[in-house]
Amino acid sequence: MAEPDIPPQVRFDWQREARTGIPEAVFCDGKTIEHLQVILTEARDRQARLFMTRLAPDTHAALAGTFTLDYCALSQTAIFGGLPDGLPQRDKVALVCAGTSDLPVIEEARRALAFHGIEAPVFADVGVAGLWRLMSVAEDLSRFPVLIAVAGMEGALFSALAGLVPGLVIAVPSPVGYGVSAGGQAALTAALASCAPGVVTVNIGNGFGAAAAARKIIG
Amino acid sequence: MAEPDIPPQVRFDWQREARTGIPEAVFCDGKTIEHLQVILTEARDRQARLFMTRLAPDTHAALAGTFTLDYCALSQTAIFGGLPDGLPQRDKVALVCAGTSDLPVIEEARRALAFHGIEAPVFADVGVAGLWRLMSVAEDLSRFPVLIAVAGMEGALFSALAGLVPGLVIAVPSPVGYGVSAGGQAALTAALASCAPGVVTVNIGNGFGAAAAARKIIG
Amino acid sequence: MAEPDIPPQVRFDWQREARTGIPEAVFCDGKTIEHLQVILTEARDRQARLFMTRLAPDTHAALAGTFTLDYCALSQTAIFGGLPDGLPQRDKVALVCAGTSDLPVIEEARRALAFHGIEAPVFADVGVAGLWRLMSVAEDLSRFPVLIAVAGMEGALFSALAGLVPGLVIAVPSPVGYGVSAGGQAALTAALASCAPGVVTVNIGNGFGAAAAARKIIG
Amino acid sequence: MAEPDIPPQVRFDWQREARTGIPEAVFCDGKTIEHLQVILTEARDRQARLFMTRLAPDTHAALAGTFTLDYCALSQTAIFGGLPDGLPQRDKVALVCAGTSDLPVIEEARRALAFHGIEAPVFADVGVAGLWRLMSVAEDLSRFPVLIAVAGMEGALFSALAGLVPGLVIAVPSPVGYGVSAGGQAALTAALASCAPGVVTVNIGNGFGAAAAARKIIG
Amino acid sequence: MAEPDIPPQVRFDWQREARTGIPEAVFCDGKTIEHLQVILTEARDRQARLFMTRLAPDTHAALAGTFTLDYCALSQTAIFGGLPDGLPQRDKVALVCAGTSDLPVIEEARRALAFHGIEAPVFADVGVAGLWRLMSVAEDLSRFPVLIAVAGMEGALFSALAGLVPGLVIAVPSPVGYGVSAGGQAALTAALASCAPGVVTVNIGNGFGAAAAARKIIG
Amino acid sequence: MAEPDIPPQVRFDWQREARTGIPEAVFCDGKTIEHLQVILTEARDRQARLFMTRLAPDTHAALAGTFTLDYCALSQTAIFGGLPDGLPQRDKVALVCAGTSDLPVIEEARRALAFHGIEAPVFADVGVAGLWRLMSVAEDLSRFPVLIAVAGMEGALFSALAGLVPGLVIAVPSPVGYGVSAGGQAALTAALASCAPGVVTVNIGNGFGAAAAARKIIG
Amino acid sequence: MAEPDIPPQVRFDWQREARTGIPEAVFCDGKTIEHLQVILTEARDRQARLFMTRLAPDTHAALAGTFTLDYCALSQTAIFGGLPDGLPQRDKVALVCAGTSDLPVIEEARRALAFHGIEAPVFADVGVAGLWRLMSVAEDLSRFPVLIAVAGMEGALFSALAGLVPGLVIAVPSPVGYGVSAGGQAALTAALASCAPGVVTVNIGNGFGAAAAARKIIG
Amino acid sequence: MAEPDIPPQVRFDWQREARTGIPEAVFCDGKTIEHLQVILTEARDRQARLFMTRLAPDTHAALAGTFTLDYCALSQTAIFGGLPDGLPQRDKVALVCAGTSDLPVIEEARRALAFHGIEAPVFADVGVAGLWRLMSVAEDLSRFPVLIAVAGMEGALFSALAGLVPGLVIAVPSPVGYGVSAGGQAALTAALASCAPGVVTVNIGNGFGAAAAARKIIG
Repeated sequence: MAEPDIPPQVRFDWQREARTGIPEAVFCDGKTIEHLQVILTEARDRQARLFMTRLAPDTHAALAGTFTLDYCALSQTAIFGGLPDGLPQRDKVALVCAGTSDLPVIEEARRALAFHGIEAPVFADVGVAGLWRLMSVAEDLSRFPVLIAVAGMEGALFSALAGLVPGLVIAVPSPVGYGVSAGGQAALTAALASCAPGVVTVNIGNGFGAAAAARKIIG
Repeated sequence: MAEPDIPPQVRFDWQREARTGIPEAVFCDGKTIEHLQVILTEARDRQARLFMTRLAPDTHAALAGTFTLDYCALSQTAIFGGLPDGLPQRDKVALVCAGTSDLPVIEEARRALAFHGIEAPVFADVGVAGLWRLMSVAEDLSRFPVLIAVAGMEGALFSALAGLVPGLVIAVPSPVGYGVSAGGQAALTAALASCAPGVVTVNIGNGFGAAAAARKIIG
Repeated sequence: MAEPDIPPQVRFDWQREARTGIPEAVFCDGKTIEHLQVILTEARDRQARLFMTRLAPDTHAALAGTFTLDYCALSQTAIFGGLPDGLPQRDKVALVCAGTSDLPVIEEARRALAFHGIEAPVFADVGVAGLWRLMSVAEDLSRFPVLIAVAGMEGALFSALAGLVPGLVIAVPSPVGYGVSAGGQAALTAALASCAPGVVTVNIGNGFGAAAAARKIIG
Repeated sequence: MAEPDIPPQVRFDWQREARTGIPEAVFCDGKTIEHLQVILTEARDRQARLFMTRLAPDTHAALAGTFTLDYCALSQTAIFGGLPDGLPQRDKVALVCAGTSDLPVIEEARRALAFHGIEAPVFADVGVAGLWRLMSVAEDLSRFPVLIAVAGMEGALFSALAGLVPGLVIAVPSPVGYGVSAGGQAALTAALASCAPGVVTVNIGNGFGAAAAARKIIG
Repeated sequence: MAEPDIPPQVRFDWQREARTGIPEAVFCDGKTIEHLQVILTEARDRQARLFMTRLAPDTHAALAGTFTLDYCALSQTAIFGGLPDGLPQRDKVALVCAGTSDLPVIEEARRALAFHGIEAPVFADVGVAGLWRLMSVAEDLSRFPVLIAVAGMEGALFSALAGLVPGLVIAVPSPVGYGVSAGGQAALTAALASCAPGVVTVNIGNGFGAAAAARKIIG
Repeated sequence: MAEPDIPPQVRFDWQREARTGIPEAVFCDGKTIEHLQVILTEARDRQARLFMTRLAPDTHAALAGTFTLDYCALSQTAIFGGLPDGLPQRDKVALVCAGTSDLPVIEEARRALAFHGIEAPVFADVGVAGLWRLMSVAEDLSRFPVLIAVAGMEGALFSALAGLVPGLVIAVPSPVGYGVSAGGQAALTAALASCAPGVVTVNIGNGFGAAAAARKIIG
Repeated sequence: MAEPDIPPQVRFDWQREARTGIPEAVFCDGKTIEHLQVILTEARDRQARLFMTRLAPDTHAALAGTFTLDYCALSQTAIFGGLPDGLPQRDKVALVCAGTSDLPVIEEARRALAFHGIEAPVFADVGVAGLWRLMSVAEDLSRFPVLIAVAGMEGALFSALAGLVPGLVIAVPSPVGYGVSAGGQAALTAALASCAPGVVTVNIGNGFGAAAAARKIIG
Repeated sequence: MAEPDIPPQVRFDWQREARTGIPEAVFCDGKTIEHLQVILTEARDRQARLFMTRLAPDTHAALAGTFTLDYCALSQTAIFGGLPDGLPQRDKVALVCAGTSDLPVIEEARRALAFHGIEAPVFADVGVAGLWRLMSVAEDLSRFPVLIAVAGMEGALFSALAGLVPGLVIAVPSPVGYGVSAGGQAALTAALASCAPGVVTVNIGNGFGAAAAARKIIG
């Protein structure tokens, strides 16, 4: 039977930024290299910038010959078209994570913030099993109106942090753990069930979504 | 054996507002009338205001003789000590719900916002099955920096709304539905899985938590 | 011990088309190459056509030397015996998908429709995060009595679409997503919980089943 | 604080029938009597007909003094405004159920079909544990282009039926069972996992949704 | 047919204490009043002490005329035969809970400890949302070799506590919460997934089991 | 609209005994009193015996005036038409349960066996926490070709028993427990996952099904 | 640190056959080659026969040089020590499966039966979607006192079969399917929830367990 | 964009041992080789010992050139810095496992105990399907104040063991099994639901956590 005319059908939402303040990101998982080429070509033609998530190293390698991509293997994200002009916003968003294993998600959020013109410092390894670590940075963290917190396992960081600082805590459950915490499920329920008001949640591993929310908040 | 010395042990977090901007609310489910009397008495002595959630009508009736409570049966919330002085903040937060059955959760959020000095209009019955309803208020909704959206069933409202407006959407899944959507589970996964960036989520039915987050965002 | 006499025992339901209007399809996952050879040989002997699903590229390669198969790697489907004679039915079924990552499922449905003598256009990338895309094709879509909609993530497309068009929406949840939407679970519950009447659902990724249902509806 | 202005905010989708062919139904669970009075009054003023689901006997009793409702306690449904004028459509839809305990769901579907002007016979008690019962009506059932099948427990009826007849089978899992089949979950997965193509599914107990889909199919 | 000879068949494990150090407790849920009377009569005859859990007030009332029971309605436990002779053990076990709603579980544990000859102080309302409360008692808590911690909602207390003290933390998830934390599920996964080593867990609401474990540890 | 002609549609499977050896039982949950009256009247007319499960006391009371039922409130079962003629089979099936709370399920099985002409002794309270109880009856139990074992909580009885005796163990998970074992789920997975071969399982609380299987085995 | 003395600790249950009639089988998944060598050597020394399940081809290859194993790659089982002496039992057990993809599980059961001295014919491809196939062998199947039925997807075969034949049906859910039936979950719940009495169930894919139960039944 | 400054941010909790008696362990899953090098270098500089879990063979190989690690492939653990000085504690902790497939988890616990200065014997292959094995070591096991029990499948060992010995049983569910016991879920619920008091539980496969708890108990 005849070939499907699929790649031409890609219908990217180029107007999303004007409408919602956040440009559409490219979720690469499940897209073929041909699909990604169509989108990147269209972006190049429109001189548009793009943020790409879940871009596997192999797929990146196949695109890297044709397109200039700022790629990060740790977070499997790429930026096409560079960072925005002008000075980045500072002192608005902090990135906080429970352990070193959460850094891939932290990096997705950090790079997505940079893509939106926001520079955010990382406070790593402040998990609740050693509360002194969180306490020692609590005053620092209190300066930020928005805190993106990443934790896997039991996700106790979200509640402890939200009880210490006046800023909004955006919880990003991290797919770190095993047994009951495999895939981030325990951390997700911890974030949603938090006894500390002022915690909001995004999907497991959704660093980009947390960054987009932060961008909307700080305007 | 001797009686437990339990009521005196209530250790309310009166400093939480100074620390985080949000006073501790009283989650009444599972507390005895004696526990609630201790807390309310202490609040009266400190001239502190309190917001109470999940306060069943029977329990409220038992307290109403001793304490002056502004009670709402639809949302099972009570306010002790009245609203804050001064003019409420307006035009900052909108309340949006998919259907009439979501109004108990909307009311919990609306009253919690009022408790925090925020007046928020309600845009009811704008569920996705009749998109014209959402479209007809889209321009209005675009004025608000924060939108608290409440939906049960499949929760499609969250994504549709977040794709239309620049404000942050705080999704509150509502325990409306049956079968796969019983208890709000389908709406919760819809909020977390939303393809529209800029959606953050709180626990099912947690109108108070959404209001607290909104309060933190608009400062 | 003696060898099992298994391949001869394959008992294909060659009468299913006469009885139900839909010939039995071959679900290849879990079948050995020997099993598939027996079925294909029997089909060749009977001059019967076959539709094969979940046919992995390796398995296809092992069969391709002996049998002439129209294979599609994107959807992992094969057609044996060609398309039916005569002009295909048109303007009866539309294929609609939320994003490019849903195209493997769309292709399974499109090819199964073609196998049944139905030609269906694809409306891709009309996800709810950019409602204008869906709106811009709503009038077009209103002409079709049956719409096969494919979406992963939160599956909000199903409800939005069903609220816009008079045709029946057959929802096919797509295994696109991560965290709570991994494997298509969130989209499945969204389809089942839809607040828009007139949505029916098939199993996650079951493009063939949706096509078979469409075939039964348009007669 | 001031009373919420909630009842006036009910925004019923009176245009849904023109747009999609199916008028909005009233899901009564979670709505107060005041909400339902607003909707019914508006319907009376517009001379519109309404179908109400999940209407508990107590709530019905509170409305029955003011509004004329055709109420069925078995299915907890009510019809306001009577059946449509003209002769009902016949021989298009059959209702099939596995056991007597499924009759509440069958009645919801039967009455919703009647509300849409379709008269459908009921084939009860044809569960798979006594296949002769299904076999004895198989020829009769083969005349219908659409069959709404209701089953709880393990839901084997859906596959057995779909393998016997050319019509489309709309499966409605019924909340009949205990242990692993409590609430209809086993029947739901059976419907979705059916090995017989041509089965589509709606939510557990959603007789109204099945009727709406049937209405869309037979035009 | 003839009556079942059931009550005589009760076969209580009177030797369990000699074998394992912990006498068998009576789980009253699902037992009839007749069953409980047989067990209590046998205990009276043997001059044995008994601890009863999940004893509903109605059932207790039916037994109270015949047997002398020390009953606690908050925890739904009863002690038959009084506390053990001699001075109770002190300074070995502490009871810690996140909020006032956890007190029913705390009381089950406290009374079971007393039944085993252990007196344990209660540190209530030290939930993680107000870390100062936990910090202010951390030094006190460090004196205890065993700490029974009870928390519902997200159960962050378990990890925070275990990171602060040298004693063993026995986590008892409490059925306090709603949505994702309904029934104690979120707290249970938090306890199991804890990033702080030295946390062990018992079933949701199993204060008796935690007390039995503590009894085994302190010898 | 016209009344549904539902009660006449009851289509009982009176031939099932001839076909499969086991007469159809009446699952009363979800059936109205009218449905049950139709079935019982038909049984009386045919001089057939009936076994009824999940018959609530209220429903039984409504039927007891018209029909002679041997009712057991503990197991919520009724026998219509008495036990079979002739001497019952003995020494073929043993009933074994872990605790007193499992007796309602034991009684459903015991009465269903009696209905099938099988007399089975009950070995109660032989749970694994006191292995001596099981050991003390192991030799006795080894005489039986079939053992129906009922256990809730963690269901360890199934594996321990199957490792001790040559007979087939039919496991019936019992809905006894709380937290993770609520509703019998933990016992069900224990039965299915048993490391001891020769354990087969039926649904939670399905004493009738276990009895029917035993009847098929002993012929 | 010193090496663990692990392989010598293998403590095989060589007495199980004398006690329960079924020799212990070797579940190879998770065992190292060294563990398996210890067990096989001990079997050789004792002149004992062994049945091995879940033996991956690689592991088999590593053992095949040292031990004579009758290996079947389809079912990943091996027999050590040959079949039992004497004529096999015939006409006692039938093997029935829904589709060709279920044959790996059928083979595990067929070979385990052979290991126990039972020869069982296979009735393949009699799934419910084409009921004529099941009907055409129903009379044949009625001769067998025990039927081991294997099905994946929705598992409707179990109920249909049990309603047709007098023998006991042992259901073995097969891990065939995708979406809601992935891993055999839908078939498992179908077996447990079966409306046809006389169905008992074993774990997903547990052909060996079904064979052991059949062995116990036919003595 | 600029490189993230991630490795320098590792903030290891070197004070945890002083505070809680248990040094922080390194959970290697999800950490890059660079992260592990930073931690190991810091440990070398501080002359600190480290216990590493979930260290894959490849990652170990990459580190082995630079650091001296006592690595165990079976349990995927490594010890850096050797065992503690002085004689190990004996006769305090026993390791008990149901089957040979549980030995990887046993080894993680055994090596973690050794790291804490505790020498613990292994009682392997004492699963409940052959109770004589457990009985034959019961007297031996009764000498130990703490028993770490590892079991997969249905986890019946936990209850049987706890009913036999006076020591505390720390249950470690093992990820051994398939179908309903896949990943250790059935064993986990069995441990939590145990009818034998004195069982406490840690996460699936968490041998290190069990060892840490044992360390806390024996002081």
